[in-house]
Amino acid sequence: MLSDNSDEERVVAERAPTVRWSGSGLDILDQTALPHAEEVLHCETVGDVVEAIRRLSVRGAPAIGVAGAYGVALAATLHDPATDREAFDAAVASLRDARPTAVNLRRMVERVASKAGDGVTAVLAEAHAIRDEELGASISMGERGADLLLELVGLRPLKVMTICNTGGLAAVDRGTALAVIQTLHERSLLVEALPLETRPLLQGARLTTWELARMGAPHRLVVDSAAAFLLSRGAADAIVVGADRIAANGDTANKIGTFALALAARQAGVPFVVVAPESTVDIDTPSGDVIVIEDRGSDEVCSFAGVRVCPPGTQAINPAFDVTPVAFIDALVTERRVVHFRSGDTLESVTAGQNV
Amino acid sequence: MLSDNSDEERVVAERAPTVRWSGSGLDILDQTALPHAEEVLHCETVGDVVEAIRRLSVRGAPAIGVAGAYGVALAATLHDPATDREAFDAAVASLRDARPTAVNLRRMVERVASKAGDGVTAVLAEAHAIRDEELGASISMGERGADLLLELVGLRPLKVMTICNTGGLAAVDRGTALAVIQTLHERSLLVEALPLETRPLLQGARLTTWELARMGAPHRLVVDSAAAFLLSRGAADAIVVGADRIAANGDTANKIGTFALALAARQAGVPFVVVAPESTVDIDTPSGDVIVIEDRGSDEVCSFAGVRVCPPGTQAINPAFDVTPVAFIDALVTERRVVHFRSGDTLESVTAGQNV
Repeated sequence: MLSDNSDEERVVAERAPTVRWSGSGLDILDQTALPHAEEVLHCETVGDVVEAIRRLSVRGAPAIGVAGAYGVALAATLHDPATDREAFDAAVASLRDARPTAVNLRRMVERVASKAGDGVTAVLAEAHAIRDEELGASISMGERGADLLLELVGLRPLKVMTICNTGGLAAVDRGTALAVIQTLHERSLLVEALPLETRPLLQGARLTTWELARMGAPHRLVVDSAAAFLLSRGAADAIVVGADRIAANGDTANKIGTFALALAARQAGVPFVVVAPESTVDIDTPSGDVIVIEDRGSDEVCSFAGVRVCPPGTQAINPAFDVTPVAFIDALVTERRVVHFRSGDTLESVTAGQNV
Repeated sequence: MLSDNSDEERVVAERAPTVRWSGSGLDILDQTALPHAEEVLHCETVGDVVEAIRRLSVRGAPAIGVAGAYGVALAATLHDPATDREAFDAAVASLRDARPTAVNLRRMVERVASKAGDGVTAVLAEAHAIRDEELGASISMGERGADLLLELVGLRPLKVMTICNTGGLAAVDRGTALAVIQTLHERSLLVEALPLETRPLLQGARLTTWELARMGAPHRLVVDSAAAFLLSRGAADAIVVGADRIAANGDTANKIGTFALALAARQAGVPFVVVAPESTVDIDTPSGDVIVIEDRGSDEVCSFAGVRVCPPGTQAINPAFDVTPVAFIDALVTERRVVHFRSGDTLESVTAGQNV
């Protein structure tokens, strides 16, 4: 696995793809080096891909899924399933288990591996298909989300606030909530984006600003706690956020800070829209009340980039996610439907594909 | 000006005073070194005091006022006003102008300097009187605030959330909102304190945790954006915050993030109480709408504890303060009154001293 520092001109001129099949392997943009350096990991072995997934060089369920899918394609080129099935299966297993909690990774790896009997070309075609599906979903979410915001706010250039990173870095290309902002920008209908920095891991400050700069979209960074006040003084026309899990009643689990942002939006009378793929809708979870929130421990809060900010021994409460009740969500946009919660729509009354 | 590193045992066993008259000069706890080191600046000249105020080794209006007051006493011991009036006046002027926007500094310096005609002893006595008044105010706010919370929530041990640093570091000893938490702890009625880290300058993570540790009060640090969710799940029984300015109608300007916290408190049904000295009430400001909020520029947001977090050239919106409308404030506690805004009290209907 090699790594190259991008030269200054290329950084400004273009952006390395999140995950890309190179013809003989997999190129992964190393997100652990962003935003300070744009380094591409050239994965030439399945072990390289597993390692990149493990060390969080690639993150976000869709991006990890595509990396795993191409990992299987790489496995097939190195170990032809027709003649070397044992090595192929071992490589597939290592990819599937690279991140044990990543359901999407397991699903995509198994889907591509199921084509092994049809030969290497079929395996690679399936990986490409997964990538194309993810891109298609992002394009659809971006278009429908932009249409919805303009419908809710009025057909004029918009200021849009968002949290965490929901762009192409997390989802191969374009993303979910950030795809809406990108679409508005491409239609020349974005005044500015206002990404929240998103403590404790600062995905907004580190990654979303980087994506916005690469797409040439005007933006200003905001600390999480300033959102409510800025909204009260008219700083944004709309808010778009992603989702980790959407319960059957519409309650939405997402990055910590999302609920606070929804409260602030409602107080200011600003539309609050969740943008997420159908795969995040979990009808087996009746409501947000039953979602257990992981506490990620004190270290992320007590230090940043290795710099300790509080006295030795300080403990922290560090919920990774929060739950926004559906009552505070104006609408949900997926690649297959728009659900106007605030107008009385439910996930049951508007089925996928019904209104798109 | 000398600086000494405290040895490990003293750090744990006791806390250096924020500002203290040593008998021949002024000892100032250097807040720029906290929480990593507890260093005391021994100010033996008026220039040392001016420099300590300028470099923010001492911060918070009351603490700066007391430092300035003792600075005048030091000036009087070095330049007897009876025999060396010109040098004394020059020293007083340098103290008064050490922080041009600090109204309290100017007021306290002039009050102490007005005793110059009565001799050095009278000057020092006036500085001590100012210190005692500040301490008395903190004790009063702490007692009345604790009584109020127990009245609002019920007589039982409490979990209390707060923002920024409002303790003895900002106000010589005990402080304002943090004095309430300290008083509850001294009454064995504090389950735990939940300080918010308070981006961008992290006063909660750096200073409030340090003060809580020194007073032996149980506490856990929380990122600002997690407050709303934690409150919705019952993490705190009450919220206390300080104030920078309180308008005639009760609207309160305070550290950025205070308004977001007030929204979250109201949503969760948790009492939200402002604790601040009478000197912050500004009857010439009719309401919060007319308060102009300073933007402190991008640098504080774009770096975290000295580490750059976003791409070069990133701009930020960085409001230093926000305004919480009185409709979201349950009550105000000062050293001279308790104003139950939520029950219909106003700053006019409950005059200072009326109900204490």
